[in-house]
Amino acid sequence: MALTIGVDVGGTKVAAGVVDDDGRILEKLRRPTPSTNPKETATVIAEVVDLLKGRFGSVEAVGLGAAGFVDETRSTVLFAPNLAWRDEPIKEKVESLVGLPVVVENDANAMAWGEARFGAGRGEDFLVCVTLGTGIGGGIIVDGQPYRGRYGIGAEFGHFRVVPEGRRCGCGNRGCWEQYASGNALVAEARDLARVAPVQAARLLELGGGGPEGIRGPEVTRAAREGDPAALECFRTVARWTGQGLADLAAILDPGAFIIGGGLSDAGDLLLEPIREAFEQALTGRGYRVTADIRIAELGPAAGIVGAADLARNR
Amino acid sequence: MALTIGVDVGGTKVAAGVVDDDGRILEKLRRPTPSTNPKETATVIAEVVDLLKGRFGSVEAVGLGAAGFVDETRSTVLFAPNLAWRDEPIKEKVESLVGLPVVVENDANAMAWGEARFGAGRGEDFLVCVTLGTGIGGGIIVDGQPYRGRYGIGAEFGHFRVVPEGRRCGCGNRGCWEQYASGNALVAEARDLARVAPVQAARLLELGGGGPEGIRGPEVTRAAREGDPAALECFRTVARWTGQGLADLAAILDPGAFIIGGGLSDAGDLLLEPIREAFEQALTGRGYRVTADIRIAELGPAAGIVGAADLARNR
Amino acid sequence: MALTIGVDVGGTKVAAGVVDDDGRILEKLRRPTPSTNPKETATVIAEVVDLLKGRFGSVEAVGLGAAGFVDETRSTVLFAPNLAWRDEPIKEKVESLVGLPVVVENDANAMAWGEARFGAGRGEDFLVCVTLGTGIGGGIIVDGQPYRGRYGIGAEFGHFRVVPEGRRCGCGNRGCWEQYASGNALVAEARDLARVAPVQAARLLELGGGGPEGIRGPEVTRAAREGDPAALECFRTVARWTGQGLADLAAILDPGAFIIGGGLSDAGDLLLEPIREAFEQALTGRGYRVTADIRIAELGPAAGIVGAADLARNR
Amino acid sequence: MALTIGVDVGGTKVAAGVVDDDGRILEKLRRPTPSTNPKETATVIAEVVDLLKGRFGSVEAVGLGAAGFVDETRSTVLFAPNLAWRDEPIKEKVESLVGLPVVVENDANAMAWGEARFGAGRGEDFLVCVTLGTGIGGGIIVDGQPYRGRYGIGAEFGHFRVVPEGRRCGCGNRGCWEQYASGNALVAEARDLARVAPVQAARLLELGGGGPEGIRGPEVTRAAREGDPAALECFRTVARWTGQGLADLAAILDPGAFIIGGGLSDAGDLLLEPIREAFEQALTGRGYRVTADIRIAELGPAAGIVGAADLARNR
Repeated sequence: MALTIGVDVGGTKVAAGVVDDDGRILEKLRRPTPSTNPKETATVIAEVVDLLKGRFGSVEAVGLGAAGFVDETRSTVLFAPNLAWRDEPIKEKVESLVGLPVVVENDANAMAWGEARFGAGRGEDFLVCVTLGTGIGGGIIVDGQPYRGRYGIGAEFGHFRVVPEGRRCGCGNRGCWEQYASGNALVAEARDLARVAPVQAARLLELGGGGPEGIRGPEVTRAAREGDPAALECFRTVARWTGQGLADLAAILDPGAFIIGGGLSDAGDLLLEPIREAFEQALTGRGYRVTADIRIAELGPAAGIVGAADLARNR
Repeated sequence: MALTIGVDVGGTKVAAGVVDDDGRILEKLRRPTPSTNPKETATVIAEVVDLLKGRFGSVEAVGLGAAGFVDETRSTVLFAPNLAWRDEPIKEKVESLVGLPVVVENDANAMAWGEARFGAGRGEDFLVCVTLGTGIGGGIIVDGQPYRGRYGIGAEFGHFRVVPEGRRCGCGNRGCWEQYASGNALVAEARDLARVAPVQAARLLELGGGGPEGIRGPEVTRAAREGDPAALECFRTVARWTGQGLADLAAILDPGAFIIGGGLSDAGDLLLEPIREAFEQALTGRGYRVTADIRIAELGPAAGIVGAADLARNR
Repeated sequence: MALTIGVDVGGTKVAAGVVDDDGRILEKLRRPTPSTNPKETATVIAEVVDLLKGRFGSVEAVGLGAAGFVDETRSTVLFAPNLAWRDEPIKEKVESLVGLPVVVENDANAMAWGEARFGAGRGEDFLVCVTLGTGIGGGIIVDGQPYRGRYGIGAEFGHFRVVPEGRRCGCGNRGCWEQYASGNALVAEARDLARVAPVQAARLLELGGGGPEGIRGPEVTRAAREGDPAALECFRTVARWTGQGLADLAAILDPGAFIIGGGLSDAGDLLLEPIREAFEQALTGRGYRVTADIRIAELGPAAGIVGAADLARNR
Repeated sequence: MALTIGVDVGGTKVAAGVVDDDGRILEKLRRPTPSTNPKETATVIAEVVDLLKGRFGSVEAVGLGAAGFVDETRSTVLFAPNLAWRDEPIKEKVESLVGLPVVVENDANAMAWGEARFGAGRGEDFLVCVTLGTGIGGGIIVDGQPYRGRYGIGAEFGHFRVVPEGRRCGCGNRGCWEQYASGNALVAEARDLARVAPVQAARLLELGGGGPEGIRGPEVTRAAREGDPAALECFRTVARWTGQGLADLAAILDPGAFIIGGGLSDAGDLLLEPIREAFEQALTGRGYRVTADIRIAELGPAAGIVGAADLARNR
């Protein structure tokens, strides 16, 4: 049984796990990400890898998933805003520290691969994965392989434009999809409602401790589960934008299935039903084509570790 | 030298050519498409193939390109509005008539393949081709192979939505990209201008014979080449929407190059310069990534024949 | 009984009538507008006035209604695109030719006044009149008097913006209300539908003689009266924009009633019902205020003559 | 010299002043608004009036300005969300308590009247006043008199729609002007920027104490005065929406001048210059009409007291 290690390198924590060839995580570890010095991040990664390797002798390779642009050779992170990385040769650094082969992958690609191999995408060779969290992470599986594009940075779904002159986005543009369809968009919707219509949003405000800024994703989901009309309207709004965007991606990519992950996907059917409805209404050529399936991700936050580890195995 | 025949099956004409393995067309033929009876289209295709085959003994296969949804086995046209086809088993029909292997492909995919192998896309393995004509045709080359999606109908770029509640589209939706970025969009822009601001559009009206309805693509291009400000503004408007859409596709697909074909591409630099400008302004992550090249197609209307023939060779 | 003459000076015809103090037209005349020489328009106006005056000895004044900007002294037409007038001192010219006092008024203001005094606005001192034809004409009655604004050119409702970066307007801007809510907008909607969805628009195309350009207002109204779903959708779309705009005007002007005139108003309830529905949904403060009445104009095309004549009487 | 008292009744404070017939405030008083019991508000108003009356024997009438819908008889407040009033007969209540004639007016109308008589609008009979604060307050002066509309609730400029499906508004609609052009809109713009582009918004964040929520109007104005590009961009954005809306109001009302008041107007030329620029670009018929003047209000927050007092004098 060949073991590999998957590492999810985020802005606040480094999470790693030893994964077997059935996608099972045998053991997990996490460390805080050193926020001030990018160089130390490689050291922290090496530490957790060494610890895990010490317990399972047979580890053969390491997969790193990082939020940001990864180059097409899967060696260098071109740009990772949350890690303060710019042209960081992370593959080489970690390899020299741990003495194992390393592959680097965009974190959303790693998650997509985890779901494709062991989660909601099993058995389907053409997949589009959409991770709805702070923003939108994207992954594409083509013919059973991760799609990276010419320069390694495809599937940045969060930044195709859905509204001309729309909401400002952190990427510098306006109207990007992730400003309308993400966990943050849900929260922004609920806070907006609470600010301008506090009576209507009374339950949301109560759960948020009184003020709009106290309302976060779990509060909106909880209120929606209780049947609160204001929270349900927020979900419907975000789901409508999500379904429309999936229909846009279907026009371009024609996948067999979409997989919806990320924090927002915890809402399950609250989210999935209105997404499906919006998707079916917006799909071009509906009636003349097979409609792609839309599924909630199955592996949860661990998908990135599992995917990165498996990509290292199949490097 | 292995020869194959490529056939471009359109709503008004069937155009076929014998193509060698360097992508050269040795001889061409065309027939009107029988408009009333879909069954006869197969007969007309067979006739032109037989004629060409008679002159070049060694033809080994036939590639058909058709506007519409082609299934993932490349045998059946699911839906082709201009040909009145619905679930048409065209591969089988033509094979039984001509006694040669036949492959069927979406016409825009065939054009993309032609350009990828022998035209503006030579040497680049990740391509996005956009054909700006009546609407928008799209083709994607991934890792040197045509991308078709799970059900054969990917790359329908014309129908991702760029304006919520925007212009009505023939597909039944509103705000589709092809309503803003296509030859038809250019003409609609010019006619609109002529209707509401006839003084400003005097040159366009003159070239169009007096009324807005007389203004067509060549008139707008000619006026723009003369430096007419109204025509140039129409080009800039369409180019801005085109460049924005290419930036959206770059976020999703990250190709090495875009190839712009179709009737609108005859305008050359008039179109290409403002497209590039808009693309660069709209590209997410600009400054942290390699910017894809944008090129005008090289093979002209024959790209579809060349591409279909080559796909038949490599079937 | 005091008689006055009202004259409606349009781009294609000069229509005049002798009107009594109950707003009845005793006799009417019309002449083509001399299109090439603006100066001759005054002569044609004088001719029809002289003819009518000859038959009714007691005429005491003349009111002229003209499409365009009229200065606040009601003497000069600042700008009238269809008449090629620019700073035309029409009051003085016509007075010197006919030997009667003359007042000049914007044509939509004259129509509004006619409806206010003798038509659908009787008994209501705060009125907003909206004439839906080629574009939108507007008139405001405040406290029983016509509202002209500081420089004589208020109530140009057609040109407040309802869609940022929206449809091009003849005034040089984009997104003006009259591009969405007018007779022309209805026709544009129907032709668009016929172009992109000919099957759905089959009845409209049939009535239009086969092509989209043959579809005009009467065809759309006729098809809608027959129950044709495509025509009804066109009406609903235009009515939705109209009702929204009326709600915007209600926020600003809070009138007691709206009067809808112009060619589009011939459709009666087909138009009125969806306008009312959209208005009520869009009205700010609904539930806390009296909702203005919305009525179809009663005097038809003669409202301008009647209103201009009455303004001359009360000069 | 006839003295009257003007009272500005707001959600947090009751501010009153004795005003002479030159619009000078001789003495001012303020009390907190009793927030829980609407009935006590009348008592508080009566207390401050009695105190002021005790010091100036000759007071002849009282004018109340209140945020909300005031009926056309100027007696009853139909709806005032911040005061929890609904059909409140405030004129009668206060009259019975203070033994003086009372007139009630919408607060923005009172401010507009103050500016018209003694401030930036002196000498101009057709005015549109726009108060940019939490939302937008509006006042119209027609022919030297306040315009109230048929039911007393005109000039609610804040709630005409400028963006279809735009930002949510407290009135229950979406896309209302005050969501784009107000003090709150400026702050929302700056916080948005700080959230998605913290580096670019570094100076705003610093002035706001670190987090987006700490950024308020004065911080944005201060940063803009220092030349901070991010703050200046926020001003330009809000000014563009403001200028566009003024152009819309000019199409409808054709005033001689616009007066810009409210907290946002403290920014002076920082705001005024880009508003003028946007207004002139958006004005329909520009080039053929006199362009209305745009001026900053002169009386500051006291305009409401001065206006209400003067309306009481001229009751």
